Amino acid sequence: MSTGNEEQLNSITIALDCMGGDFGTVETVAGAKLAAKAYDGSKNLRILLVGDINEINKLVNEEDHPNLSIVQSDGKITDDEHPIEGLKRKPNSSIVVTTKLVKSGNAQAAVSMGSTGASMAASVMILGLLPGLDRPCIGGPFLGLAPNTVLMDMGSNIDCRPNLLVSFAMIGSVFAEKFLGIQHPRVGLLSVGSEPAKGNKQVQESYKLFESSPVNFVGNVEGMDFFTGRADVIVCDGFVGNILLKFAEGMGNVLRKYTQSQLSKMLPVDQAGELGESLWTETNLARSIGGPLFGVKAPVVVGHGSAKSEEIAGAISTALKLVELDVQSDLEKSLIELASHQNVSDLVE
Amino acid sequence: MSTGNEEQLNSITIALDCMGGDFGTVETVAGAKLAAKAYDGSKNLRILLVGDINEINKLVNEEDHPNLSIVQSDGKITDDEHPIEGLKRKPNSSIVVTTKLVKSGNAQAAVSMGSTGASMAASVMILGLLPGLDRPCIGGPFLGLAPNTVLMDMGSNIDCRPNLLVSFAMIGSVFAEKFLGIQHPRVGLLSVGSEPAKGNKQVQESYKLFESSPVNFVGNVEGMDFFTGRADVIVCDGFVGNILLKFAEGMGNVLRKYTQSQLSKMLPVDQAGELGESLWTETNLARSIGGPLFGVKAPVVVGHGSAKSEEIAGAISTALKLVELDVQSDLEKSLIELASHQNVSDLVE
Repeated sequence: MSTGNEEQLNSITIALDCMGGDFGTVETVAGAKLAAKAYDGSKNLRILLVGDINEINKLVNEEDHPNLSIVQSDGKITDDEHPIEGLKRKPNSSIVVTTKLVKSGNAQAAVSMGSTGASMAASVMILGLLPGLDRPCIGGPFLGLAPNTVLMDMGSNIDCRPNLLVSFAMIGSVFAEKFLGIQHPRVGLLSVGSEPAKGNKQVQESYKLFESSPVNFVGNVEGMDFFTGRADVIVCDGFVGNILLKFAEGMGNVLRKYTQSQLSKMLPVDQAGELGESLWTETNLARSIGGPLFGVKAPVVVGHGSAKSEEIAGAISTALKLVELDVQSDLEKSLIELASHQNVSDLVE
Repeated sequence: MSTGNEEQLNSITIALDCMGGDFGTVETVAGAKLAAKAYDGSKNLRILLVGDINEINKLVNEEDHPNLSIVQSDGKITDDEHPIEGLKRKPNSSIVVTTKLVKSGNAQAAVSMGSTGASMAASVMILGLLPGLDRPCIGGPFLGLAPNTVLMDMGSNIDCRPNLLVSFAMIGSVFAEKFLGIQHPRVGLLSVGSEPAKGNKQVQESYKLFESSPVNFVGNVEGMDFFTGRADVIVCDGFVGNILLKFAEGMGNVLRKYTQSQLSKMLPVDQAGELGESLWTETNLARSIGGPLFGVKAPVVVGHGSAKSEEIAGAISTALKLVELDVQSDLEKSLIELASHQNVSDLVE
């Protein structure tokens, strides 16, 4: 699929759901301003601010920011709403309008701070799924300490068939190659030992499928291998991936405090604080770059609900890079190739 | 079961498999000396050094160390051997002799640095399993950053029925209460959201069983809750637990280097090194205290294969504390109570 590739040569337009996230327009609009400023002059980036016009108008003057345009939407789907029911009840909500701007070719990518459920549902219903997937998956690097190690999936698919794990492996490989510039990315299956027989039933069954798949499979890897560089892409179901993501996040919070308190005896407060902050960033990379929502027919990036302006600008940058590198075309080609490789013809559209 | 409780009032005897671990007698004997010295005078601790007499004699003089005695064994079961076949082929191997000393009441607890498989197999075959379990489980606190949060299971049971997770919860509760001194320990089921409907099929099925079990169940917890104090015991299958354990270990290794390099610009080398080391310890607690092997009919502690003397002394201390507090009696009572509660009469011996 192509959404305005002709126009893309001259400018890239990102649709930003300004009503999403915990802080709504205040942070999203500030994030858009930061992103626009960061690329000012160097790239022809346009950002469509989707949301309540009155609210957004108070925060930004379109005349001062010629590459920001406001697009009216009506209502938002909240975290406690059932995503699909929300989409039906609120057909003009910010996430629906944002996603439709991509579908119609008026924007090349969508960015939202959630709810994640609503972003996923809107992406599937409006943009459509790529072959081999039942739902989109969120993945990418999640540790500053291992910025080139891709975790697939981060929590969007909880119980996974082995076939689905192979799709994640393929998606992660394309992302690692195109987005991170890694040649022939090595794929590892997350387990409790490197031998083929190690792991739960799901992993043991998946091992054989991985071996016969087109990905560059290097075997089972273990928890420490996020840091050893044994694999560029580490595949697990969203249950394990989400637990790891939140474990690292929680550890970052505690390490920040721990380091600051330890160092306060030896260093000036600001230096101690700096190392604490850097440790937090090193364990919370996914917050600062947003999580690409893979497996739908256009680039979508979902950020953390509690993201602040700088992190929202990071998610916009990720979307911009996905479009510039045209990661989407390769993802689509690879998943179609994989589906035919697996001879699962009924999964191919 | 009682193994020499009468004698225990006067002295506690620990059987130590001196041939186990990556470094064999050199580190294990040094660890025994450290432990004996630590308690010299304050407790009547005796340690039986099980292994090759000639090798051990070169490392220790029984006359200088009246509370260390050597017990002859013949051979060891290595990491690459099938544990059960190894036990059959080598009936006088160090792990067999060590475990039999506990069975016969000559020692009150066994300590080994592995192989873990051989320790587990010897414990099951010689000491026997408690009701409700198919194999022993390894658990306990694993993070210095969260020293009172018990992780069950750390990797001994990969695919777990919901019933087994309830047994882990019960074991973890008894350990938290008796060993860590936590009143009415709160038990959380590790998942991807706090709502009962969140989680994979295994967790969703387990949730109901946990609710109706005698443990103090506080619901689902998430990855960050190892650091938030929402639960004292966090239950998951050994697949997830082992991945978390190794993830934390890997992160500790990287953080040590990262912190040292960051701080080397601001602090003298030794101070920078100190914080790096402390960060490593904070993420590798399980190494320094050993992992209790729960679910067999006497206390057994298994340490890390690469443990050095101080960590081996830590594992011996853990075994000593398990015996002193008589954690075993409460474990046995609780698992029998749980089995009758679950009306799984065929699991009760």
